[in-house]
Amino acid sequence: MAEIPVGDFWFSVGSTYTYLSAMRLRDVAAAAGVFFRWRPFAGVLALTGATQVPFIEGSAKTRYMWRDIERHAVKYGIPLRLPIPYPCPQLQRASSVALLGMREGWGEDFVRAAYVRWFQHGEETGGDPNLRAALAACGQDFNRVVSQAESAVLQRDLAAETNEARRIGLFGSPSFVVGGEIFWGDDRLEDAISWARHGTLAAG
Amino acid sequence: MAEIPVGDFWFSVGSTYTYLSAMRLRDVAAAAGVFFRWRPFAGVLALTGATQVPFIEGSAKTRYMWRDIERHAVKYGIPLRLPIPYPCPQLQRASSVALLGMREGWGEDFVRAAYVRWFQHGEETGGDPNLRAALAACGQDFNRVVSQAESAVLQRDLAAETNEARRIGLFGSPSFVVGGEIFWGDDRLEDAISWARHGTLAAG
Repeated sequence: MAEIPVGDFWFSVGSTYTYLSAMRLRDVAAAAGVFFRWRPFAGVLALTGATQVPFIEGSAKTRYMWRDIERHAVKYGIPLRLPIPYPCPQLQRASSVALLGMREGWGEDFVRAAYVRWFQHGEETGGDPNLRAALAACGQDFNRVVSQAESAVLQRDLAAETNEARRIGLFGSPSFVVGGEIFWGDDRLEDAISWARHGTLAAG
Repeated sequence: MAEIPVGDFWFSVGSTYTYLSAMRLRDVAAAAGVFFRWRPFAGVLALTGATQVPFIEGSAKTRYMWRDIERHAVKYGIPLRLPIPYPCPQLQRASSVALLGMREGWGEDFVRAAYVRWFQHGEETGGDPNLRAALAACGQDFNRVVSQAESAVLQRDLAAETNEARRIGLFGSPSFVVGGEIFWGDDRLEDAISWARHGTLAAG
């Protein structure tokens, strides 16, 4: 595996499509001989403002989103059990923990574990049961981590990351940034890797 | 080529991403031995209501959309010359002409020609210069066609198609519908074809 990341994987642990990327990124990137730096931000609405809610409850687009994720989970061999809680009001808490974890070295494992609890066990992201189980799976102490994740210092850092994401033109999760190019959506992961390796999208 | 369509290609001639699908659908489908029925609807806002404008002027998402289309056009070998007019207030007129053309047998050629005028010559979709050039390319008389396309009967039929699109759960353009499954976006064309052929998404 390369020592220098080819780009950044920006995400919120409240995003639905990010489940697919969180679960498959490590393997897909490793197979291509590259890796990404994982960069949590506060949440999509924190990034864009509330003018455009990505998935309005009860809308045709939201129904489609669940079905589209389900079909792709099957394609990728990723388990899931729908329906799950959504939206999740404590999503920023999950992203805060993820940011702390990235600094301490257990962040990627936490994000995967938190998504497993949400998408396979129906525990809302950022809620106590989800965090307890996901942190236990990473060998981390719930009280210490949550206390630090909710501290003013960590929240300031999360806001700074969110501002940086906005500054470079991001508006959704997951987003992959490679050499100044933005690739938005789990379905652009292969494009991002192709760009990292060849400076172009792979032929269809 | 099969005589029975495997599914429907629903679209508005005011949609940007539909440029990619309109230009490549025939070849991609033929290579897979399938074909789609082309079904124009009035427009995305007519379909969903104006609560969620797909691309707000000046937004990060809109900037991304143009760049994403550009990268994919290069990938597919489809010419384009940005920037182009957007949004285009007369887009419904273009979709009306498309619907008439589908019934008379020149609709697919018209849609491709209208998109070429818009994306390669900068003539806004639905405007007179675009329609004149695109209809001439299909051997159609501008005055006859526009008069019929703007008639109450044709407008009623276009509204009925738009209602049907809404009824089956569509919310954007392009959308491919195969066996009750919706595939939204040019980037889901291959998924739709895989579903038609195998009842599943192709392995990644």
